[in-house]
Amino acid sequence: MLNELFSHDFFMKMALKEAEKAFVENEVPVGCVVVCENQIIGKGHNLTEKLVDVTAHAEMQAITAASNYLGAKYLTECTLYVTIEPCVMCAGAIFWSQIGKVVYGARDEKRGFTKMGNLLHPKTEIISGILENECSELMKIFFKKLRET
Amino acid sequence: MLNELFSHDFFMKMALKEAEKAFVENEVPVGCVVVCENQIIGKGHNLTEKLVDVTAHAEMQAITAASNYLGAKYLTECTLYVTIEPCVMCAGAIFWSQIGKVVYGARDEKRGFTKMGNLLHPKTEIISGILENECSELMKIFFKKLRET
Repeated sequence: MLNELFSHDFFMKMALKEAEKAFVENEVPVGCVVVCENQIIGKGHNLTEKLVDVTAHAEMQAITAASNYLGAKYLTECTLYVTIEPCVMCAGAIFWSQIGKVVYGARDEKRGFTKMGNLLHPKTEIISGILENECSELMKIFFKKLRET
Repeated sequence: MLNELFSHDFFMKMALKEAEKAFVENEVPVGCVVVCENQIIGKGHNLTEKLVDVTAHAEMQAITAASNYLGAKYLTECTLYVTIEPCVMCAGAIFWSQIGKVVYGARDEKRGFTKMGNLLHPKTEIISGILENECSELMKIFFKKLRET
């Protein structure tokens, strides 16, 4: 029962909620949550425009928040859910965190890290394609709106 | 005359000063400065232990500080000096910043980004080997001390 509730879909929906926050703030809509024992211990959405800071990606903030919550640098028992495939920078941060699992929604053909080979820690499991359509749709609507304005 | 004063060696010494701050705080001694028109507009040293945050690398902080100073996400007219070759995460951040030039001291054979190919922006120039011995020596002393304690 609990396993059904706390599914990959469930937490990806939480990441999507974060992405929607970015969307309404006119940021590229990417959202992320870090989960430990079925509890969200870190979350973030892209804030690069608002903070005028290229490092302010959703994953970076979620990792920092999760480490802050746990008081630990390493997130080996955690799962990171992110709506879009992480970029090289975020993959590097995920590597350092030694996080247990990365679950992403839609691929990023252009800037996704997988193009560069597997940059993650050998112990990190990768799952992709969770709520893929919802995750990519939000991006498509955002960039369509951006081109029109 | 000014060009002599504001040489790569000069700014790498500033980055080394940052690295020394990390050293005395028992952090892996990496230091970084971001320079624009011969002025340091961002600096940082590794703070991953103190902040309990794998993202708190010297370069990340220096990039954030420089963008904050300029009020601009892109650092195309800037040079980043860092004592040790950036890791994949920092290379990713450097990519996003579109920084004009990256100057590093010593190579990081194990975690340096160049092993993964050139992850930087095509317009970013890379220079290496500036004060290489000083930069690597600080690391060697640090890890020797760490092993002994």
